[in-house]
Amino acid sequence: MTLIVAIDKSSTNDGRDVLEVLDKICNMVVGVKLGMPLLLKHDLNLLSNIRKICNGNIVLDLKLADIGDVMVESVELFKNYADSVIAHSFIGKKDGIDKLKDFLDKNNMKLILVGSMSHRGSEEIYDKEIDNIINIINDVKPWGVVLPATRPEIIKTFRSKIGNEIKILSPGVGYQGAKPGTALCYGADYEIVGRAIMNAPDPKEATKIIIYEQKRGMYECKK
Amino acid sequence: MTLIVAIDKSSTNDGRDVLEVLDKICNMVVGVKLGMPLLLKHDLNLLSNIRKICNGNIVLDLKLADIGDVMVESVELFKNYADSVIAHSFIGKKDGIDKLKDFLDKNNMKLILVGSMSHRGSEEIYDKEIDNIINIINDVKPWGVVLPATRPEIIKTFRSKIGNEIKILSPGVGYQGAKPGTALCYGADYEIVGRAIMNAPDPKEATKIIIYEQKRGMYECKK
Repeated sequence: MTLIVAIDKSSTNDGRDVLEVLDKICNMVVGVKLGMPLLLKHDLNLLSNIRKICNGNIVLDLKLADIGDVMVESVELFKNYADSVIAHSFIGKKDGIDKLKDFLDKNNMKLILVGSMSHRGSEEIYDKEIDNIINIINDVKPWGVVLPATRPEIIKTFRSKIGNEIKILSPGVGYQGAKPGTALCYGADYEIVGRAIMNAPDPKEATKIIIYEQKRGMYECKK
Repeated sequence: MTLIVAIDKSSTNDGRDVLEVLDKICNMVVGVKLGMPLLLKHDLNLLSNIRKICNGNIVLDLKLADIGDVMVESVELFKNYADSVIAHSFIGKKDGIDKLKDFLDKNNMKLILVGSMSHRGSEEIYDKEIDNIINIINDVKPWGVVLPATRPEIIKTFRSKIGNEIKILSPGVGYQGAKPGTALCYGADYEIVGRAIMNAPDPKEATKIIIYEQKRGMYECKK
């Protein structure tokens, strides 16, 4: 499976409950990424239910970017409710990512580092530091890296320099403009889709179509 | 007044309630910075009480670093409970900081951008992009910028290039090693102190001493 669903709010745009939607699509996705707006509500009961329905693989997407001590305190609140955590590589290792990584290792949680972002602003500063970011990633060895489907050539660059062990998770598919399958074709392991599923009139059907398009994209890619 | 108190948890290390501590020191500080670990608990009642006791100037320190739409959704939850919001400059303007700034302007809230961080890891990537970050700050014109008291020469550089309109807020004082008054001497408007106050046996006395040291630092600086 190659699809991760992203959820930023506890209900869809037309007011349906997140659990109701997830119940229909969980068997088709490999994980659930929960965004800061949802996590800020600190509804641990909801998190627990999402994890139950979807058999684990809960990704906390707080886009952590603080000093190590503060990041650890933030994750501590969710340590029994999630499986992996997204933090920014940009903040650096010393007293930053290293402290978070230690905490996650001790608690059997996985670290995922942002390597580049899906919006246009990522080109202004973030993407100018690709070489340094790749060095940090090869040094820290996180479980995964987040790279944008909107600029797939970046995925290709990272894949060639970080090897095949580290997973690449790619957002920006659907609402933000990237076609399903493109990031996979360029070397990603998973594509992350949020609004195109959660706000679809029929999320189950939307998920099926995206998975079909992923397969088509991969097929065309191999040609 | 030149001191902002930082609070990351809803109780001190020895179990005292945050409100109890704030009640004793609020008249000596110009603002209260609330960190992600506390904000994740989404206790709006606590935020409301902090704002009442301290007469406003609540700084949301989520270290926002996501695409614009997601940052706006996160801040939306607190819009009636806070006065300013800290986000990272490194995520860039387009579809990032610009969207957040628009939302904050409409809601009479102030934007504060991180320009550099207080931990050692900040030198690995963040501080290599100082010129681009200063450009973004001069373009976006946030109300304030966060710069580390632990590396005060950075404060000097920013002050010389962003002018005197934009406020400089400086963390890293106390527990992280910088002496009170140093950042002020190098051009900061406010120093941010967290653990050295909140975990002191007598927070009121600790605050008084820090303010005294700030004044001494400023006096020695002028010599």
